[in-house]
Amino acid sequence: MTMIEKAQVTVKRDRREELIDELVSQQRRFHALPSDLSADESAQVRRRALGEVAGTALEHIGHYSMDAERASRRNCENFIGAAQVPMGVIGPLHLKGEYVDGDVYVPMATTEAALVASTNRGCAAIREAGGATVRVEEAGMTRAPVFRTSGIEQTQRFLAWVREHQDDVRAVTDATSRYLHLLDVRPYAFGTTVWLRFRFDCGDAMGMNMATIACDKVVTEYIEHETGVPCIALSGNYCVDKKPAEINFQEGRGKRVFAEIVLEAPVLKKYLKTDARHLVEAQYRKNLLGSIAAGSRGYNAHFANVLSAVFIATGQDPAHVVEGSLGVTCIESRGPEGVYASVYLPDLPVGAIGGGTELATQREALDLLGVRADPKRPGAAAKKLAEILGGAVLAGELSLMAAFTSQDLARAHERLGRGQLPPGSRI
Amino acid sequence: MTMIEKAQVTVKRDRREELIDELVSQQRRFHALPSDLSADESAQVRRRALGEVAGTALEHIGHYSMDAERASRRNCENFIGAAQVPMGVIGPLHLKGEYVDGDVYVPMATTEAALVASTNRGCAAIREAGGATVRVEEAGMTRAPVFRTSGIEQTQRFLAWVREHQDDVRAVTDATSRYLHLLDVRPYAFGTTVWLRFRFDCGDAMGMNMATIACDKVVTEYIEHETGVPCIALSGNYCVDKKPAEINFQEGRGKRVFAEIVLEAPVLKKYLKTDARHLVEAQYRKNLLGSIAAGSRGYNAHFANVLSAVFIATGQDPAHVVEGSLGVTCIESRGPEGVYASVYLPDLPVGAIGGGTELATQREALDLLGVRADPKRPGAAAKKLAEILGGAVLAGELSLMAAFTSQDLARAHERLGRGQLPPGSRI
Amino acid sequence: MTMIEKAQVTVKRDRREELIDELVSQQRRFHALPSDLSADESAQVRRRALGEVAGTALEHIGHYSMDAERASRRNCENFIGAAQVPMGVIGPLHLKGEYVDGDVYVPMATTEAALVASTNRGCAAIREAGGATVRVEEAGMTRAPVFRTSGIEQTQRFLAWVREHQDDVRAVTDATSRYLHLLDVRPYAFGTTVWLRFRFDCGDAMGMNMATIACDKVVTEYIEHETGVPCIALSGNYCVDKKPAEINFQEGRGKRVFAEIVLEAPVLKKYLKTDARHLVEAQYRKNLLGSIAAGSRGYNAHFANVLSAVFIATGQDPAHVVEGSLGVTCIESRGPEGVYASVYLPDLPVGAIGGGTELATQREALDLLGVRADPKRPGAAAKKLAEILGGAVLAGELSLMAAFTSQDLARAHERLGRGQLPPGSRI
Amino acid sequence: MTMIEKAQVTVKRDRREELIDELVSQQRRFHALPSDLSADESAQVRRRALGEVAGTALEHIGHYSMDAERASRRNCENFIGAAQVPMGVIGPLHLKGEYVDGDVYVPMATTEAALVASTNRGCAAIREAGGATVRVEEAGMTRAPVFRTSGIEQTQRFLAWVREHQDDVRAVTDATSRYLHLLDVRPYAFGTTVWLRFRFDCGDAMGMNMATIACDKVVTEYIEHETGVPCIALSGNYCVDKKPAEINFQEGRGKRVFAEIVLEAPVLKKYLKTDARHLVEAQYRKNLLGSIAAGSRGYNAHFANVLSAVFIATGQDPAHVVEGSLGVTCIESRGPEGVYASVYLPDLPVGAIGGGTELATQREALDLLGVRADPKRPGAAAKKLAEILGGAVLAGELSLMAAFTSQDLARAHERLGRGQLPPGSRI
Repeated sequence: MTMIEKAQVTVKRDRREELIDELVSQQRRFHALPSDLSADESAQVRRRALGEVAGTALEHIGHYSMDAERASRRNCENFIGAAQVPMGVIGPLHLKGEYVDGDVYVPMATTEAALVASTNRGCAAIREAGGATVRVEEAGMTRAPVFRTSGIEQTQRFLAWVREHQDDVRAVTDATSRYLHLLDVRPYAFGTTVWLRFRFDCGDAMGMNMATIACDKVVTEYIEHETGVPCIALSGNYCVDKKPAEINFQEGRGKRVFAEIVLEAPVLKKYLKTDARHLVEAQYRKNLLGSIAAGSRGYNAHFANVLSAVFIATGQDPAHVVEGSLGVTCIESRGPEGVYASVYLPDLPVGAIGGGTELATQREALDLLGVRADPKRPGAAAKKLAEILGGAVLAGELSLMAAFTSQDLARAHERLGRGQLPPGSRI
Repeated sequence: MTMIEKAQVTVKRDRREELIDELVSQQRRFHALPSDLSADESAQVRRRALGEVAGTALEHIGHYSMDAERASRRNCENFIGAAQVPMGVIGPLHLKGEYVDGDVYVPMATTEAALVASTNRGCAAIREAGGATVRVEEAGMTRAPVFRTSGIEQTQRFLAWVREHQDDVRAVTDATSRYLHLLDVRPYAFGTTVWLRFRFDCGDAMGMNMATIACDKVVTEYIEHETGVPCIALSGNYCVDKKPAEINFQEGRGKRVFAEIVLEAPVLKKYLKTDARHLVEAQYRKNLLGSIAAGSRGYNAHFANVLSAVFIATGQDPAHVVEGSLGVTCIESRGPEGVYASVYLPDLPVGAIGGGTELATQREALDLLGVRADPKRPGAAAKKLAEILGGAVLAGELSLMAAFTSQDLARAHERLGRGQLPPGSRI
Repeated sequence: MTMIEKAQVTVKRDRREELIDELVSQQRRFHALPSDLSADESAQVRRRALGEVAGTALEHIGHYSMDAERASRRNCENFIGAAQVPMGVIGPLHLKGEYVDGDVYVPMATTEAALVASTNRGCAAIREAGGATVRVEEAGMTRAPVFRTSGIEQTQRFLAWVREHQDDVRAVTDATSRYLHLLDVRPYAFGTTVWLRFRFDCGDAMGMNMATIACDKVVTEYIEHETGVPCIALSGNYCVDKKPAEINFQEGRGKRVFAEIVLEAPVLKKYLKTDARHLVEAQYRKNLLGSIAAGSRGYNAHFANVLSAVFIATGQDPAHVVEGSLGVTCIESRGPEGVYASVYLPDLPVGAIGGGTELATQREALDLLGVRADPKRPGAAAKKLAEILGGAVLAGELSLMAAFTSQDLARAHERLGRGQLPPGSRI
Repeated sequence: MTMIEKAQVTVKRDRREELIDELVSQQRRFHALPSDLSADESAQVRRRALGEVAGTALEHIGHYSMDAERASRRNCENFIGAAQVPMGVIGPLHLKGEYVDGDVYVPMATTEAALVASTNRGCAAIREAGGATVRVEEAGMTRAPVFRTSGIEQTQRFLAWVREHQDDVRAVTDATSRYLHLLDVRPYAFGTTVWLRFRFDCGDAMGMNMATIACDKVVTEYIEHETGVPCIALSGNYCVDKKPAEINFQEGRGKRVFAEIVLEAPVLKKYLKTDARHLVEAQYRKNLLGSIAAGSRGYNAHFANVLSAVFIATGQDPAHVVEGSLGVTCIESRGPEGVYASVYLPDLPVGAIGGGTELATQREALDLLGVRADPKRPGAAAKKLAEILGGAVLAGELSLMAAFTSQDLARAHERLGRGQLPPGSRI
């Protein structure tokens, strides 16, 4: 290092200390660091400042391998580093779908003891039974702007206009992205309020962003202009994004997913330590009557657990687990001592591109699943992911329901939460 | 390195290749690696095997700094590494609560462009307005085993027994952990089915595990034994864990959180680019009427977004965001041109110990918040976290609702999702 | 009277006493009276027998003027007479609809003190404000048989078959009645269960019966036959008849009705003893936030009260009030001191023919409304009734909401329930 | 008749014509007839006027035997006569309850063909099986005023005050009626809104009126006065009256009713033309999965039908059928070929005094049931009525569910709606 280089380093270091001081003293905002700092440098400055404020170093948060430049621009402002979420793997999970066929290993990022072990046990049972049948339907990504009218008569005229101009509307929305196609527009109205629930096919993207962009365009540049009816909010909560909602249960959102399996007595006994009678009764009193008693729209054991683990691993939006938690598990007697088990997820927004899917570990996780967008089969990668999620959720339901019947639920937690690892049971 | 050492390395390498081969060929299960392998070694073997199966290396997943030994025992079986979720920071968020008082910087782990920037904008408005009032109530962690009776008369006798033995029941549950205290038992019954919803104070733990352990103990060793009424499943879905449910909306679960702020016209204009009239109308047509139209129990803009980001950063269970998505945002005119804004979260299960809170990055994130269990004030750390979450959610609501009124929502996304970072708007 | 005639009378009287004895001693069932007895005679015999059993005469129940022969065959088996429900009248109610235009007097059969007076007060306000705008949409009468399949794949084939044969299905259903026309079939499916929600236009009939007959025909004679998929119940509760349900809130059922009015300050003050500010706040805290807090799908003050009174008066099915109770009242500021008020009823099954509409008093009540089916305008009479109901419900909402703001609610009840009649307030 | 008397009659007649003219020409309001007219005379004048307006006589409406003076003061303003609703009877219904024990004949006022016949068939099955077990619990009549506070802190103070003054509050409410006793007050609050759900035991009255009077008193004279927190509406829709609501499903309202029976194969076959297997499957796919698919809180076949018929016959408030429609039917296999069947009604507001119960035909109907308030056993008569309703609803469920399995549902309607009466099936 030459003297000049050394001097530059010192200047740089001094300037950094200055920035840190400014952040600590609140003279400078965390998002207002100089643009010539690299993302890694900015992150370090922020961590150092926070460390001073909180009296604690943020070393581990600074330990990451992702492309900070890209992440800080596309995923997370005021970037300081990364949360490391432990990742495990289950499988092989044998699936027979339209977009997945054969064995997959599914990555799960979770901090909940026993979740991976338990879901893995479900995979073993499914594998032994010859694989689960899975199917996915495009429910469409939705966005529902809300409008204000003067009352019944203007609403009627407005809705008539929308009906008559559906093709024109589509021309505008579909021009915003070659990946987006407007499927239809569902209106709902009362009093002086009108919602238009736009439903898009977004190919391999989860699509919330592109749906919003398309809606913004068509609303501000076409609908409001032509009708004079003002849009009050581009999302009118009739979409419904990241809230549990009946319209999504009825109409679906994102992908609508189905998975099923028939398990005979030997599989139930060997892999799940249970039998048909106990499983069917637990299903009846817990998943059906229990959810009825509670007024829950999740008639299942724990869709949300499996979904959140795979969502985080693969860069999906974890807030969409709210929607994924809706749905129904069925377990019915089949044959003398077997069961038919199925899961139904009406509302599962997922994507193979965009959002968090391009981040380093998330991309690897998707590659592990063989989920990668193919221009020749647009939408197929996202649908494959949805089918896999259906299968994984089914595995999770089977194992947990079986664990309840074995009443070893809490005991398993006791062991696993404290560090011993007998496979297969969980809460 | 001596010859012997070299030989040992070779043997070790050979053995590893052998294990990898066995995993790849499905002769060995992923959870059945030899116990003398360290967690890091096992993770590497698994990654190598998966890499062969999927034809892709899992390099980044192998890049972590957490204690793999501990994580693989306490958090995640079949451990292969970590998902790196980008972390940003918002703040200072100025809060006036019972457990938090003053400025906090809140870490958010997210992959959704604009979320951090937008929530941060809400913090600025709150700060400028003098800080948000926040409060938390202990709603209690719940678990509701389901029982089978012969019908009305046995149910009546069973419920009478439970009422009469509530103290004895508490003696059993509370003996399972010094951190757990049974608050009460709420019964629900019809036909041949009975649920007992146990409600526990679990101190600084989120408490689902210890509640389950306590229930298991009292059910199998006391209640079933004394009454002869069989428990069918230790969780009867009347708890309700990780599903949206009315009983949780009514009775609460985990923590019940309130936050509020009054914003005058200058703050609305300068920090949120909006005014009272537009905010109040968007609130009315979106958060109230929109959620009513949709049949949603989330009368808010995006509780789930902020919660999931802070949950992942701080080691909370992300599947609990399903419950956190329930609740109500209010925005009302206050004074000539100001607004009163509040958020209400009836169902927020969080903890400061246990679960993912001891992981490396998660612990740092909690330290940044000053959330650390103190034996002298049991429960205070978890309640502090809950109050902070209430404040952060309020910030998120203010900013997004304001963005809707500015109709710059989609345009912001367009910019942010593609890498430019003007602060403040998001979907 | 000749001797023979006298003897016959005696014989008849003796035989009657005998029948009464048989009924009292449970040797004969109440529905098994000899068919040569007239309906009036059978009713008398039953009343006499019940009188002996209960030790009380049923004189008033025997005081009726309807055609017993017809009523006992078409409306009510084991006929014993009639319940007399007090009937009052409100109006004139001034309405501006597509099917009603001008003043109507609306009969209400009720036992609830103050209901008629209160609703009448609402009519006065509406009249003074120039009349309410009302509109009705055909949501269609629905019936949803439920089927069992073997799982996902058979379900997919079944639904594909239904889609492909929709015209053939319609040919079968529409042949069962010239008043019935199949609008569409909405499927819903998960696991091994499939529902087909048939939606019919039934002209002036409420249509539940003809919809059931059409479904029975097409299911048993066509769909089951062609597909081999068995129907488990002709109503699979996805219809949904006489239960509160989300699918009806979303898709509507029977008629979907809208009514609205703008009221200026003088009208609010003179007729409703209130002002805009108080009305709007009561609306906000009661009809919106209160129903949200309660988890109710009736965001209104008392739709059910007005509906049940007019339903009983006009021979509608009072159990359908369950569905009619769903819906939303809006009251918004309009102009400096006025309000815009509206009601929305998504699910109102009504008819102008069939059911109880042909009974003597009910027919008179319908005639009073000018509701009479006209072959030249099929469906117009039922739609007129629906529009009138919308207007009456609006009147009821305005008056009760105003009464709440005057806080004279309970005091009014105190007076009215005890027999004094100052017009205008009620609970 | 003397000349003077004749002259008076003429005068009277002339005056009547004059009044009629004034009504017809809208110079006089219908509620503003001279107070010296008897109720019968006023009713006649109104009918005559309406007859002129509508061009139709209201003869049958004028045919009634009730005490018009009383009805027009206590039940129905602007009295014009009565709706005659056909009444039938079912039974004997054999019940084993705490308030009813033995056979009852149950009056049903309905216009729906086949309802009485079908429910009667259910009674036969119950009778043959030895009678149904029935139980009732006092859920309490509720009223929930809504208050406005300035935010979190005032709400906390307000709720603390209410908790501390519960006894004082009770002293005020209970002084308003010797039949009313405050059980407890359940608060709910968010933002600036607070509800206090008062729960009263109202003895033999349904109690909505006395609950409202008590609330009005304690709110306006005590709570507002002491706390300065204003009540915005005496009913804040958290009660919840006559709207379907979760809080009522969870906490109950009025009476909470349970009924059950075990039916063996011979009874199923002989009386219900069905068997256990078919019944259990219809229950599963219709009452459970179907209501789940539809998002309905009525997991039953047709509670509302039976309830509305008995409600109208016995002078209950028919709008309360909205609440009664909530609840769960269970049908489970029991023994080799039998079933256990139960109904659960969490929300059934009924009374034996007040409201419509004192009207002539309604009183007779209650006497037929042996439901008459006894000062020595306050509340027992209302509870007896509730138990009977539970039994009748069970009979209705059994028969209709059986009819579905026989697939003769629609065919039965076809016959019955057109006037033939084979007993036993219905929609």
